[in-house]
Amino acid sequence: MSDTASGTVSSVIRELVDANHILFDQGVVDGFGHVSVRHPVRPDRFLLARSMAPGLVTAQDVLAFDLDGAPVEAGGPAAYLERFIHGEIYRKRPDVVAVVHSHSPAVVPFSVVTGTKLQPICHMCGFLGTATPVFEIRDFAGPGSDLLISDTRLGAALAQSLGQGPVVLMRGHGSTVVGSTLRQAVFRAVYTEVGARLQTEAMRLGPVTYLTEGEAIATTNTNNTQIDRAWNLWLKAAQNRSMTS
Amino acid sequence: MSDTASGTVSSVIRELVDANHILFDQGVVDGFGHVSVRHPVRPDRFLLARSMAPGLVTAQDVLAFDLDGAPVEAGGPAAYLERFIHGEIYRKRPDVVAVVHSHSPAVVPFSVVTGTKLQPICHMCGFLGTATPVFEIRDFAGPGSDLLISDTRLGAALAQSLGQGPVVLMRGHGSTVVGSTLRQAVFRAVYTEVGARLQTEAMRLGPVTYLTEGEAIATTNTNNTQIDRAWNLWLKAAQNRSMTS
Amino acid sequence: MSDTASGTVSSVIRELVDANHILFDQGVVDGFGHVSVRHPVRPDRFLLARSMAPGLVTAQDVLAFDLDGAPVEAGGPAAYLERFIHGEIYRKRPDVVAVVHSHSPAVVPFSVVTGTKLQPICHMCGFLGTATPVFEIRDFAGPGSDLLISDTRLGAALAQSLGQGPVVLMRGHGSTVVGSTLRQAVFRAVYTEVGARLQTEAMRLGPVTYLTEGEAIATTNTNNTQIDRAWNLWLKAAQNRSMTS
Amino acid sequence: MSDTASGTVSSVIRELVDANHILFDQGVVDGFGHVSVRHPVRPDRFLLARSMAPGLVTAQDVLAFDLDGAPVEAGGPAAYLERFIHGEIYRKRPDVVAVVHSHSPAVVPFSVVTGTKLQPICHMCGFLGTATPVFEIRDFAGPGSDLLISDTRLGAALAQSLGQGPVVLMRGHGSTVVGSTLRQAVFRAVYTEVGARLQTEAMRLGPVTYLTEGEAIATTNTNNTQIDRAWNLWLKAAQNRSMTS
Repeated sequence: MSDTASGTVSSVIRELVDANHILFDQGVVDGFGHVSVRHPVRPDRFLLARSMAPGLVTAQDVLAFDLDGAPVEAGGPAAYLERFIHGEIYRKRPDVVAVVHSHSPAVVPFSVVTGTKLQPICHMCGFLGTATPVFEIRDFAGPGSDLLISDTRLGAALAQSLGQGPVVLMRGHGSTVVGSTLRQAVFRAVYTEVGARLQTEAMRLGPVTYLTEGEAIATTNTNNTQIDRAWNLWLKAAQNRSMTS
Repeated sequence: MSDTASGTVSSVIRELVDANHILFDQGVVDGFGHVSVRHPVRPDRFLLARSMAPGLVTAQDVLAFDLDGAPVEAGGPAAYLERFIHGEIYRKRPDVVAVVHSHSPAVVPFSVVTGTKLQPICHMCGFLGTATPVFEIRDFAGPGSDLLISDTRLGAALAQSLGQGPVVLMRGHGSTVVGSTLRQAVFRAVYTEVGARLQTEAMRLGPVTYLTEGEAIATTNTNNTQIDRAWNLWLKAAQNRSMTS
Repeated sequence: MSDTASGTVSSVIRELVDANHILFDQGVVDGFGHVSVRHPVRPDRFLLARSMAPGLVTAQDVLAFDLDGAPVEAGGPAAYLERFIHGEIYRKRPDVVAVVHSHSPAVVPFSVVTGTKLQPICHMCGFLGTATPVFEIRDFAGPGSDLLISDTRLGAALAQSLGQGPVVLMRGHGSTVVGSTLRQAVFRAVYTEVGARLQTEAMRLGPVTYLTEGEAIATTNTNNTQIDRAWNLWLKAAQNRSMTS
Repeated sequence: MSDTASGTVSSVIRELVDANHILFDQGVVDGFGHVSVRHPVRPDRFLLARSMAPGLVTAQDVLAFDLDGAPVEAGGPAAYLERFIHGEIYRKRPDVVAVVHSHSPAVVPFSVVTGTKLQPICHMCGFLGTATPVFEIRDFAGPGSDLLISDTRLGAALAQSLGQGPVVLMRGHGSTVVGSTLRQAVFRAVYTEVGARLQTEAMRLGPVTYLTEGEAIATTNTNNTQIDRAWNLWLKAAQNRSMTS
């Protein structure tokens, strides 16, 4: 790799470490969940921490994987069991540059109930559109699986369920959120959780007016210009409560 | 400007910075939302931070705007997209000295449900009166807007909906709260959020006894004499968890 | 006063300061609410901070009052508007050594709903007994009051409503909790809030089995021997997050 | 004891201290609740702190007990009133190496309602299986007890109710969770609380799809290999907010 390419990779890895810490500090991930970014030089690869709590990740913990979920360097540390989520989405969606998988607490309930869809009640969550798909792993792994996306076949099925959208819920498990930049994926992961909490509360107060499709599109376009405002705050907050120093 | 006037402005800016930090620390704003104060020497202007997270604002980030939302000094940094909320309210309401706009989480649900009004269940929220208006931006911007108050026309419509009251909810968006002092506006913004949470919980337990109009007025009058007690606490708390040092 | 008496008073004041900080740190009080202790040498007096946020109280802020709520030393700083809560309860209840008044958030909803009583669902809250009275200030101050216990007449009415119990709710306002020691009053104030939250959640899951009267009595007797275990933890927690250093 | 055995005991005690701090920091215990581990050299004994808040426990506070709940060294400090929970479970369940007893807030409501069972809605809580038993102490101690497991007879009854499972709820009181390692017991105690909160929220959104028995078993097997990932995070978090330094 050239010096420039190498500098680009280092810079992306630093931002990926920040993303790990932000997602922990904002309560999107706990000991579990993970975030990846497409390799900036080799689009057929992605960068992801070794199997560990995101809040504790440092640059030394970041590994490169090919789209089959195989580590580029053999003999390394244990990898996340569900790295196939990332590989298959990068394969199917050339527009995707980052993927967040989490069990964030307000979202999980929406994955297991019938008759209620996760939908945006406010402009910050417009990216959710008019409905969020739910991936039922029983349809692919049968009634007695461990619910994990533990191979490329299940990864491909999940990617199929995600379609061209930003978020897919996973029944009894959590969600996967994608973005065209790492910061956008983090932004969406945080506001998917925020939006789920708001919808839960609103539904208890009375019939809810959701965003129209037009409002969902327009708010998404505007919010896409404002992502750094949130990122800068979240990064400072995560640094103030650092788990790695 | 005279030295005295200049000292007054500096002092108001310092308090505006504190207000930004308090609103973040109390959970009223996150990366988004903003607070302004009318210019103490030029009532046809107001002071507002540049476009950034309130928790990170310093005195250097505060800009002056005219009531049309135009920055007094051209060529400065990017301004909040919704500065027109502030300008139009200051224009319409000479009694208003400070404005807080937020997406505080317990309030947003009240903006999107039909059949339930935000009302005070306890004395700390008496200023809410007997009902809080909801501004439906679809009536002014159509069914496909980005929900933001992004020009003077929408700002004027919002100010009209606010009327002579202290709070207006904004459908699918948040709320705007005003005060005759900066500290009062902050106090009301915090207790609008607190009150929304209390009402939400109470409604789930059974039929609720709200404050009468007389109680709302009497409690507001008493609480107006007690604002510094909360302010001093919140300022110390925000300083202890400072995001700017 | 003798040296011994003076030492006793100093020691009680130190514990009262700790109680203020604990109640803030545990979320029972915010900028508002107050805690008092009967004067250890003069039972016709009580000790209470001047009007300020409990989290910021220091020993220098503690004042002595007679049971009419008049400060023993004239010309001092402003006193809490509701000091009459304390005086009238000490007058009516010789067994009471400490009083906590708060607007703790899970309790307020129980003060405004009909058909639901605050009751213990678990052993830590056994002291609540089989029902908690609600004081309706409209019966004494009419339909347009500021809801505050702002004179001895209203204080006496509240004390009457409290009766021989440990807790009285105040409609649209909060609660007042008493104890035969300062630590017991603090313990009860914290667990009144905890219990209200637990009951709120349980009621949403299905029909609730509350403690019997016998269980309420037996758990109270046992818990009375365990108060220091919680106090020591809460004090350390409050010191770790000190607002006064 | 040999030097090796003595080193093993010291190491187990250090981990037990960490477990105490983690359970406090994760909100499973407050001033009350306790965690024990079977003695690594003498399986007819167990190690448990003296009667104190878990968040404040140090190695010097750990005592050894026999299975009857009697301290191995007489004349020591006061012991937890409910140490019989631990002794009787260790007696009845040779597979159990650690026991956590708590009043964690999302779980208590499930102990007092009829018609609703605590069940896993997501893979992290698969260990809960298809239903969690509730121990009704009235059946053994009558209608006026203090609800505590204060002797070996009640301990044996609770152990009977636990059966071969990982968790038993205790009506009006809390829960007891066991594990085949200390880290597994802590993991389960945290995720019992997490799972109870998730189920509570999901039940309010609509009919819930719970894990099948097969999914419960498969997710448990997978999660058992991932416990250290959470432990390492929780330990770092507890150390960052240390209550004992």
